[in-house]
Amino acid sequence: MQVDTDRFLADLKRLREFGAFKTGVHRPTYSPQDMEARHWFLSRLKEEGLEAEMDGVGNILGRSKGPGPYLLAGSHLESQNEAGWLDGALGCVAALHLAASGLPVDVAVFADEEGHYGSFIGSRSFTGLLEEAEIDRLANKYHDKPLREALREAGLEGRPRLRADAARYRGFLEMHIEQGRQLEKRDLGIGVVTGIVAIWQWRIVIEGQQNHAGTTTMDERRDAGMAAVRLLAMIDSEFPRHCAERTVWTAGRIALSPGAPSIIPGRAEILFQYRDVDIDVLRRLEEVLRRCVTESNRRERTVATLEAMSLSTPAVCDPAFQDALEAAAEALAPGKSLRMPSGAGHDAQYLARIMPAAMLFVPSINGISHHWTEDTKDEDLALGMRVLAEGARRILAA
Amino acid sequence: MQVDTDRFLADLKRLREFGAFKTGVHRPTYSPQDMEARHWFLSRLKEEGLEAEMDGVGNILGRSKGPGPYLLAGSHLESQNEAGWLDGALGCVAALHLAASGLPVDVAVFADEEGHYGSFIGSRSFTGLLEEAEIDRLANKYHDKPLREALREAGLEGRPRLRADAARYRGFLEMHIEQGRQLEKRDLGIGVVTGIVAIWQWRIVIEGQQNHAGTTTMDERRDAGMAAVRLLAMIDSEFPRHCAERTVWTAGRIALSPGAPSIIPGRAEILFQYRDVDIDVLRRLEEVLRRCVTESNRRERTVATLEAMSLSTPAVCDPAFQDALEAAAEALAPGKSLRMPSGAGHDAQYLARIMPAAMLFVPSINGISHHWTEDTKDEDLALGMRVLAEGARRILAA
Repeated sequence: MQVDTDRFLADLKRLREFGAFKTGVHRPTYSPQDMEARHWFLSRLKEEGLEAEMDGVGNILGRSKGPGPYLLAGSHLESQNEAGWLDGALGCVAALHLAASGLPVDVAVFADEEGHYGSFIGSRSFTGLLEEAEIDRLANKYHDKPLREALREAGLEGRPRLRADAARYRGFLEMHIEQGRQLEKRDLGIGVVTGIVAIWQWRIVIEGQQNHAGTTTMDERRDAGMAAVRLLAMIDSEFPRHCAERTVWTAGRIALSPGAPSIIPGRAEILFQYRDVDIDVLRRLEEVLRRCVTESNRRERTVATLEAMSLSTPAVCDPAFQDALEAAAEALAPGKSLRMPSGAGHDAQYLARIMPAAMLFVPSINGISHHWTEDTKDEDLALGMRVLAEGARRILAA
Repeated sequence: MQVDTDRFLADLKRLREFGAFKTGVHRPTYSPQDMEARHWFLSRLKEEGLEAEMDGVGNILGRSKGPGPYLLAGSHLESQNEAGWLDGALGCVAALHLAASGLPVDVAVFADEEGHYGSFIGSRSFTGLLEEAEIDRLANKYHDKPLREALREAGLEGRPRLRADAARYRGFLEMHIEQGRQLEKRDLGIGVVTGIVAIWQWRIVIEGQQNHAGTTTMDERRDAGMAAVRLLAMIDSEFPRHCAERTVWTAGRIALSPGAPSIIPGRAEILFQYRDVDIDVLRRLEEVLRRCVTESNRRERTVATLEAMSLSTPAVCDPAFQDALEAAAEALAPGKSLRMPSGAGHDAQYLARIMPAAMLFVPSINGISHHWTEDTKDEDLALGMRVLAEGARRILAA
């Protein structure tokens, strides 16, 4: 019952050939490259002796034939556009090699964690949180192809959707690259994830009055752009007083209409989000955000409105699983692990709703992810695989 | 020598039919609608006894046959897309009726003041500031048609370009709608323009580091978007301490790249301009702007650079002409005039470089311009026409 890290690395590198792009991969969900990768992975599961099938949304489940109790492990195979070779793929291949090492581990591959068509289609389908009506409604966010059409073209139409048998499992494990620099900065090899942050994504729309930038005096203006600037500056000075240690906030988009040099913007739209693992912090920051919007409307001659686009729930990783992973790390690489939250979303956050779940991170070189230059050293990948296997062994033995 | 305001209004309304759009007009430069309007106007000049011709960029000059000294008057005939019926057209028809009333006034119609192809092509050509090489280079900013091709299609290819004979004229007069609310707010009828503001247009580019909005901690970020917000907030709080009474400043565009909700912007581009009639104020605000950019680069982990896109020269209206227009207003509508700068650019700013120039404003209903709802009451148009004629008479008699 020893994991073969050479074969693990070989499978990872084989997977890198599907949709190869520079040193990364381009495998959009349900694209020919993505489907090829899925079929190859399905055949690898069967080679390793699992009973494996692909379902109506492209999820793959490989069932271990040995006696229980079982663990479930996995991640996703598709990538962001022109992105890295490890994100998602690593967790799938790690799960395959947990099973290949003889551990009673079922392997799950979820579809569209990267959100080409929707939000976590695969893991939400598997955990019972995806309605047929939503599948009817969804379309590709880059080129508008309806999800139903994509599923038909991928040969998945009409297949039933797999649902998790939660009672079968002790819990779920997902290995992933960190996508940040916390491990690398500290020269560490293993991140034991404490929880997956929730993302509270807001749209702030500010309505003013479009007007001539030369003939409208400053006191007559209802400038939606400058109101947006002042509101964001206020939020950015208020948030540090109320956030937690690892809270992050981001205004990813500021769009002014019409956006011409000599026209006072009549409308501004801001996409603003913050992330934390603690629901109380998320709620507190919502209050701060609402107060800032109210204050903007008191001060400005514009009208700002706040709309919640998505308010996810933070997922806490199972404390006993965390302890097991940390003990495994201490045994194999003493002093080389760190407990840390995941700032990005992962399939594990949906699995955590129906069973204990945990995640293990390995370092990302320069913290890069969602880019084709994303990479991790082979030795870090191999150490992560061995710690994951030892952690799984300890969890199953508990 | 009495101006016929009924015929003046009738000509204005006839012109409104060329490219009629809702209650406004759509007459892009050199479009069939614009060329029809030009040919109609040319024939009207001839009907009124002027020697009139159209030149190689569509400029029209109608020469008065009587004895000098002469004034030159005019404006432009094309419109912004789906814009108002008065902008430009008013100054042309007013000039026609100065001549029609028997005053020794030449009538000039300039092409493309609205900048479909370039910046003040007509008045720059007429005043010797437009090179052939620039005509070769210019193209329509909405649909990329080369200017040369547009001129050929309009039947203007090969015609010589008219140049102003500055020695022939006492000066230049342009009547225009105010495009703001200063007159309407005060229930006034006549604006005597003191000068035409210069526009100093800047591009501020901020380079940061594009990164994952979840896994990049706040202290690691080089967020170009938030740096842009803080810089603009700084500019907006500094400018009021250094500006003049009628200075205006506008950030018409803020573009963050890539502009996605979960990506820290790696680059921000801001279009920022300010306008004033006083060159010393413009220079002082440039210093303030440069200090803010320097301060941003001292405080932030991003790099802001400032690029001047265009720095125009303010045009001062001739003081004696202003006095004559104000005296005319006092004679015809006592207490109903106001001296004011023009916040928008006009052909008069180029004519002012080679001869004394002045402008007369009439009120804009709700201050609206560059929109098809732009309008002015008939009585305000008629009063403006009569004050302009009386002012011209006084200037010529001086």
